[in-house]
Amino acid sequence: MTATTLDAYTDRYARRVGDMEGFDVRTLFSTTLAADVVSLAGGAPFVAALPLDAIGEMLGTLGSRDGATSLQYSGGQGDLKLRERICELMTLVGIDVSCGASPDDVVVTVGGQHALDLVARVFLDPGDVVLAEGPTYVGALRVLQSAEANVVHVPMDDDGIIPAALAEALSTVARAGGRTKFLYTQPTYHNPAGVTLCERRREEILAIAERAGLLVVEDDPYSLLGFDGETPPALRSRRRAGVLYVGTFSKTFAPGFRIGWALAPHAVRDKLVTASEAQMLCPSMFAQSAVARYFDTMPWREQLKTFRAIYRDRRDALLTALTDLMPAGSRWTRPRGGFYVWLTLPEGVDSADLLPAAIAAGVTYVPGRAFYADGSGRSQVRLSYSLPSPERIREGVRRLASVVGRETQLPRHRHAVLSRG
Amino acid sequence: MTATTLDAYTDRYARRVGDMEGFDVRTLFSTTLAADVVSLAGGAPFVAALPLDAIGEMLGTLGSRDGATSLQYSGGQGDLKLRERICELMTLVGIDVSCGASPDDVVVTVGGQHALDLVARVFLDPGDVVLAEGPTYVGALRVLQSAEANVVHVPMDDDGIIPAALAEALSTVARAGGRTKFLYTQPTYHNPAGVTLCERRREEILAIAERAGLLVVEDDPYSLLGFDGETPPALRSRRRAGVLYVGTFSKTFAPGFRIGWALAPHAVRDKLVTASEAQMLCPSMFAQSAVARYFDTMPWREQLKTFRAIYRDRRDALLTALTDLMPAGSRWTRPRGGFYVWLTLPEGVDSADLLPAAIAAGVTYVPGRAFYADGSGRSQVRLSYSLPSPERIREGVRRLASVVGRETQLPRHRHAVLSRG
Repeated sequence: MTATTLDAYTDRYARRVGDMEGFDVRTLFSTTLAADVVSLAGGAPFVAALPLDAIGEMLGTLGSRDGATSLQYSGGQGDLKLRERICELMTLVGIDVSCGASPDDVVVTVGGQHALDLVARVFLDPGDVVLAEGPTYVGALRVLQSAEANVVHVPMDDDGIIPAALAEALSTVARAGGRTKFLYTQPTYHNPAGVTLCERRREEILAIAERAGLLVVEDDPYSLLGFDGETPPALRSRRRAGVLYVGTFSKTFAPGFRIGWALAPHAVRDKLVTASEAQMLCPSMFAQSAVARYFDTMPWREQLKTFRAIYRDRRDALLTALTDLMPAGSRWTRPRGGFYVWLTLPEGVDSADLLPAAIAAGVTYVPGRAFYADGSGRSQVRLSYSLPSPERIREGVRRLASVVGRETQLPRHRHAVLSRG
Repeated sequence: MTATTLDAYTDRYARRVGDMEGFDVRTLFSTTLAADVVSLAGGAPFVAALPLDAIGEMLGTLGSRDGATSLQYSGGQGDLKLRERICELMTLVGIDVSCGASPDDVVVTVGGQHALDLVARVFLDPGDVVLAEGPTYVGALRVLQSAEANVVHVPMDDDGIIPAALAEALSTVARAGGRTKFLYTQPTYHNPAGVTLCERRREEILAIAERAGLLVVEDDPYSLLGFDGETPPALRSRRRAGVLYVGTFSKTFAPGFRIGWALAPHAVRDKLVTASEAQMLCPSMFAQSAVARYFDTMPWREQLKTFRAIYRDRRDALLTALTDLMPAGSRWTRPRGGFYVWLTLPEGVDSADLLPAAIAAGVTYVPGRAFYADGSGRSQVRLSYSLPSPERIREGVRRLASVVGRETQLPRHRHAVLSRG
């Protein structure tokens, strides 16, 4: 521990710390705070659309009238009233008592991210294989990397994960002597791909998993934010066993409370609670009470309609702008819900290399590489339309299109040429 | 995954799940909810003493006026305003700019427990050794067990951890080829031992750690709740390097928000943030705002005096009741702050075996074994005086004393005799 060493602890960190680095998108998000930059990067919901006065009143009462409870510790599994509300909410995606859902099998977590982390803690030893869509949620990748898991991507198309590719991935891993612990999937309004697993494939995927004895971890943050007036039933609604469902209030209410949940097979639930208690004793009781009270006393169904209308407008603005402005050779997905469009740039354009120029031009996004464990995604970009206004979205695309346009007009291998000069 | 298996996942859990079981105190805490039972078990602060009306008003404003921020995501390191408040608060235990404390090196966490978990994630590989007082905080044990660490206890006396014993533990581990990653310690108003590391020993412990290149993790939840009108300066106040400090608002304000922090060497801080983001993206922004606002606008110094007076009365009630009522052969510590008394029962009485009879008699506590990784603590009991009124505390001790009295009058090896019958 000499003063001359920059990091005196270099030789003492856990092995997993090396794996936790990965592709760093954090600097991006601080960049998005600059004044005129249009952020198509973050996945923040538009909380300003909430009835803030009424919510303020509700929160005030929670403190003044129920403070002796709401300001205290809760149990590690989470407050029972909230778990009951969670079960009511899950009926909207087809998960109800008929498929064995019960408040007793719900574990309240610090957002959906924490539920994924608990699943990783309970199931993953270093070197275990996890299957995940390619691309997949960047937060899930961080959890899996921090668990020193080996992520194997399963390709998707516009109808979601490809069943034959899943079967093939399973046998490839088995042939190589790997141990696949679970499939991590976002079947509905996928982050970042913006696609939805079609009805027919849902049954196929579940059947393949069942035959292989493969646990399916279904991450479902966006399914109540669909634009077509219908909510695809969750995978968990089709199977009592074999599917562990993860939900969150970050998009249906507000991320500021950090409340999510896992609905797990009974024996697994117990282990999730033990792991969660070791991490943080319990989630915030005040936050749990706030969420339960919101769904108990406020017009949340109408608020969901408001959110859907806002996000649909913004999705439309983004798709229209992309059609109007992007250079030839670009293509993108057309989400029917959620927050994201997955954009493929013209051949030869690297989205990570392009980012500094994009930020200089006043727009930011997340480069596709952030969503793969294997370095794929160099031509791709995740665009989020949840937070900026339709006008700002169009302006952002205009800036992006101009930067991409410039890039495609440069000779190929420009960087190599420049670096020699 | 057959229907006949009770736990279909038995062969798929991570190795650490086995270690996570340990001595289970969870059932205890549900027991404490029964009507007339006096709980001397939990360490819950007396939040009913807070000015709930004023806090309610503050929380209401946070939602109605600042909702667009307070209901949104925050950064992974935590809100800057809160980190500034944290630095102000730490000056009360002697940690200030003169010893290099800065908001930039603070990481906001989901309570102190989460800070400990992050430290474990960043530093511990399976099999690594961690030194900790014997007894030590049960939550720290859970973190360390879940990290598959090897906990080596260092004995304490009434003046806290014994320096010679620390030096000896270090060389024993080194001789055995073990890798000691850090010393976990609660120097002030120890949970569960109720003792405080004396001034002279603070320097000795730090000097031993420094010579050995040993990181010290200082967990300090209670030091602002002292009864003698003075706050012992933290270990961190004596060293810029080599001490990682963990704090919490659970006892100085309210546990219902689950907000704590780590003050870490700069290079370590970065790794803690990365680990925290992987776990849960960020702590609740609403909870962070609530804590920052409380320390910004409310008379928190006066509230601390109120808390101290309440807990001192309760400590006095517990000590007096123990003196008046406990059978000969019992002995206990005399805390000068915090929430806990560490009671040693007369020879031959096992505190875990005794618990069912105690609960039947209407009192509950935490058996000493919960605070050791090695099965020690069978004669010990942790008594908490933070939540019940002085009258209830005395009633609880009366019940405990009568159960212990009955036990000591029985012939030794009663259980062995009975089990043969």
